Amino acid sequence: MLSKARIKYIKSLQVKKYRQLEQRFVVEGAKTVLELLASDYATECVLSTPDFLAEYEPELKRFAGELIEVKPDMLATFGEYHTNNGALAIARIKPNMPPQLTPHDYALVLDDIRDPGNLGTIIRIADWYGIKAVIASAETAELYNPKVLHASKGSFTRVPVFYTELTGFLADVTVPVYGTFLAGDDVHTVPFGKGGMIVIGNEAHGISAEVEKFVTKKISIPRYGKAESLNAGVATAVICDNIRRNIFNHGEHGGIHRG
Amino acid sequence: MLSKARIKYIKSLQVKKYRQLEQRFVVEGAKTVLELLASDYATECVLSTPDFLAEYEPELKRFAGELIEVKPDMLATFGEYHTNNGALAIARIKPNMPPQLTPHDYALVLDDIRDPGNLGTIIRIADWYGIKAVIASAETAELYNPKVLHASKGSFTRVPVFYTELTGFLADVTVPVYGTFLAGDDVHTVPFGKGGMIVIGNEAHGISAEVEKFVTKKISIPRYGKAESLNAGVATAVICDNIRRNIFNHGEHGGIHRG
Repeated sequence: MLSKARIKYIKSLQVKKYRQLEQRFVVEGAKTVLELLASDYATECVLSTPDFLAEYEPELKRFAGELIEVKPDMLATFGEYHTNNGALAIARIKPNMPPQLTPHDYALVLDDIRDPGNLGTIIRIADWYGIKAVIASAETAELYNPKVLHASKGSFTRVPVFYTELTGFLADVTVPVYGTFLAGDDVHTVPFGKGGMIVIGNEAHGISAEVEKFVTKKISIPRYGKAESLNAGVATAVICDNIRRNIFNHGEHGGIHRG
Repeated sequence: MLSKARIKYIKSLQVKKYRQLEQRFVVEGAKTVLELLASDYATECVLSTPDFLAEYEPELKRFAGELIEVKPDMLATFGEYHTNNGALAIARIKPNMPPQLTPHDYALVLDDIRDPGNLGTIIRIADWYGIKAVIASAETAELYNPKVLHASKGSFTRVPVFYTELTGFLADVTVPVYGTFLAGDDVHTVPFGKGGMIVIGNEAHGISAEVEKFVTKKISIPRYGKAESLNAGVATAVICDNIRRNIFNHGEHGGIHRG
């Protein structure tokens, strides 16, 4: 049984202020909870419906934290997604640590991606294309926002996100720094190196003047029609696809989409 | 001045039932209203702030419909986007007509894209990549939903969307029909023809069995990491980029993103 205080606590974690205070966050949905349990996040508590419990007994047996059985309609009162079908988990926020990158790795650098849906989508794209890390400015949406986690579809458990002041970070970088601009080299023909940073600009203002100074290679996605621009997530995917297509061609085939 | 009845009428058009009854829809935001006025949509009425009126006098002079000056805070009470900065318009819904396509055109075929944001993003991608039309199943989100229009960023004025029963439509098609599957030919190496249909499957279930029968070429986006799938809009963009990269390379350079 869940106490009223516990219910209130879980609901409070929908709000950034309380997530930061408690250093905890909530993961909704059976699939994402399973990915969380398989990750290196410290999961403290899982609320589970009887069906979820029965279906994933082996996975849940390995889980050393608190396991609470709840009715499906109880679970539905938490969080903002009606897709919350089976489980909810509370986990610890990870320390904000710089990722370990080699010169043969790619990382995304987010210059104020403010929309949570865009951030989640970008993390999912990074996971698909084997991008090793996401470096985010302080103004970028917060990783543990439920909308970010939802859009990332579990990829947040696999791609590290590091928040930092970008100009300081980029000043120490020795790999090429790619950035998308109106006038840049065609991504279809740019000779991408084995590793680098890909700067993704803000949804409304693009790459800021301060960050632009650190871009060593301006690139551009060719346009064949009349739209003025592409969405930030969509542009990220097209760039990552061109990098991978350029530098090697030994990906698995798995071109499905969901969501 | 706007009468109370008029205000109620405009607000009612946020709801699909009333849009269908009135055969009218609402466009929010200065930029999209300008694109609407430049399109072949029949715009009946524009609500404009004094600033918008002053800034776009030439564009508004050519507009033969009703022009109503309103205060900015009045405009903000309509619609769901706080970005509604300057103007709002009411236009007539277009008749649902099959697009004129040649064998050298590409079109997207949407097999139940239910998320309005995904539909809008896909229309914007179609506009960027010069895709001539979008063919949508009856279960696909409604074009005139404010969330669709918002995500399309004005591209809905340039890309025709035709709702129809897909198997009947595809039965008459003579160009290649491409569809994305887990096991398909690598989009990086598929020899795309000069024209064709690209089927995009539902967010949760992919391409339906009935529609799959009409797919003549199964394709796949290679994966280099661990994400299980890509978002429908993202997958659409990657496919369109690979088609354009394959069949010709004379796009304009304009690789910015917004939103």
